[in-house]
Amino acid sequence: MRIGVYGLGRFGNLWATLLSERHEVLAYNRSSARPTPEGVRRVDREELETCDGVFLCTAISAIEETCRDLVPVLRPKQVVLDTCSVKTYPLETMDRILPETVETVGTHPMFGPDSVSNGYSGLPTVISPGRCSSETMETWRAVLEGLGLRVIPMSAEAHDREAAYTQGITHFVGRLLDSLNVRPSSIATLGYRKILEVVEQTCNDPYQLFVDLQLYNPYTSRMRRDLRASFDQLLAELDSATPDE
Amino acid sequence: MRIGVYGLGRFGNLWATLLSERHEVLAYNRSSARPTPEGVRRVDREELETCDGVFLCTAISAIEETCRDLVPVLRPKQVVLDTCSVKTYPLETMDRILPETVETVGTHPMFGPDSVSNGYSGLPTVISPGRCSSETMETWRAVLEGLGLRVIPMSAEAHDREAAYTQGITHFVGRLLDSLNVRPSSIATLGYRKILEVVEQTCNDPYQLFVDLQLYNPYTSRMRRDLRASFDQLLAELDSATPDE
Repeated sequence: MRIGVYGLGRFGNLWATLLSERHEVLAYNRSSARPTPEGVRRVDREELETCDGVFLCTAISAIEETCRDLVPVLRPKQVVLDTCSVKTYPLETMDRILPETVETVGTHPMFGPDSVSNGYSGLPTVISPGRCSSETMETWRAVLEGLGLRVIPMSAEAHDREAAYTQGITHFVGRLLDSLNVRPSSIATLGYRKILEVVEQTCNDPYQLFVDLQLYNPYTSRMRRDLRASFDQLLAELDSATPDE
Repeated sequence: MRIGVYGLGRFGNLWATLLSERHEVLAYNRSSARPTPEGVRRVDREELETCDGVFLCTAISAIEETCRDLVPVLRPKQVVLDTCSVKTYPLETMDRILPETVETVGTHPMFGPDSVSNGYSGLPTVISPGRCSSETMETWRAVLEGLGLRVIPMSAEAHDREAAYTQGITHFVGRLLDSLNVRPSSIATLGYRKILEVVEQTCNDPYQLFVDLQLYNPYTSRMRRDLRASFDQLLAELDSATPDE
């Protein structure tokens, strides 16, 4: 297959590299500043027209602009796949902006540059149907499985509900602790060292990803409200347990 | 050395077992329900008088009662060492209640049954001077080092300041997330799996330890206030980043 990658940021670079192990990969990035991964051919936007499918590797909040940028170069029957950490918003956006002659599929590779040190094998990747035939879903599911990934078919809605309380909560807690300036300590317990790992991993990702995860997933606002309520509940429990002085 | 252990709960059991690898260990527990670890001799309270030193392995909030219970059986020159996860409160309590003829030393083994799966070697243990000679400090430091532990001498004050923002924050976040019912997910990211490990580890410890860590360390209330302020700050940042609809 000839596969296009739109966006060579932190994740796009990783994704293009992984795809190029099994496929011909053409990559486009608006600015020339980003490096081209080895084994990947850097192209002009127009050349993406020649690809069987094009993966969008831009920020969630940039998906609309990316789609508008792609409209002039897409040809009928091409498949456009996003790779965002939320699923309902990008699929709705693609289906609204891209021509109806194009098919859309949502994917969410649940990993990044910091979690692939042991290789890609078995890493979870969600695939969600957009405006596409079941044959197209099967084709791209097979592409992802061919990379060694563990593919999980899931509706965009179900993905977002689950991701709010897993990935969403992890990034919120990571940024929360980072703002307290937690740092290594000579008296670190095992649990505290895991806390530091969460902070390091989530804060290595762009701040934009954190913000987008919190704002473009329709379920994260409820997660933050629940977390805040639990915080207050815990403080109240401690208040009532305060020993008499 | 002949060493006494007062309290055979979750941690006392582990501590008596570890000490018994190098020393003769006599253990006392108020109720007979707790099992006696292998290699440890179960004794009446009165027999603790025969020990060179006695480690208190009771809850932080039970330290005062434990000291009162020990007063009648202690003999001059004996050393009493606590193992609490806070240091200023138990040392002040021991020095206030125990006879002046007795020496006191604070210790905090920074591990528990859930963090010793790879053995004890190199695990951090804080030692804080109480009402004792420098020779006594050296003796007990050598005992701890003889067990393979990494011993960190630190004032009780410095320990509590540091522990509030390491162990204290870890237990607070662990309980906070547990109250949200976080659980394994097919789409768990690496970071989320670390979050689950923090929850599992902190919530395996008795709830009393969580409460005591938050109430008997003079610095944890500031930590919780800081964490709450950071939470609100993060929510405000997200509010101001909300995209125009």
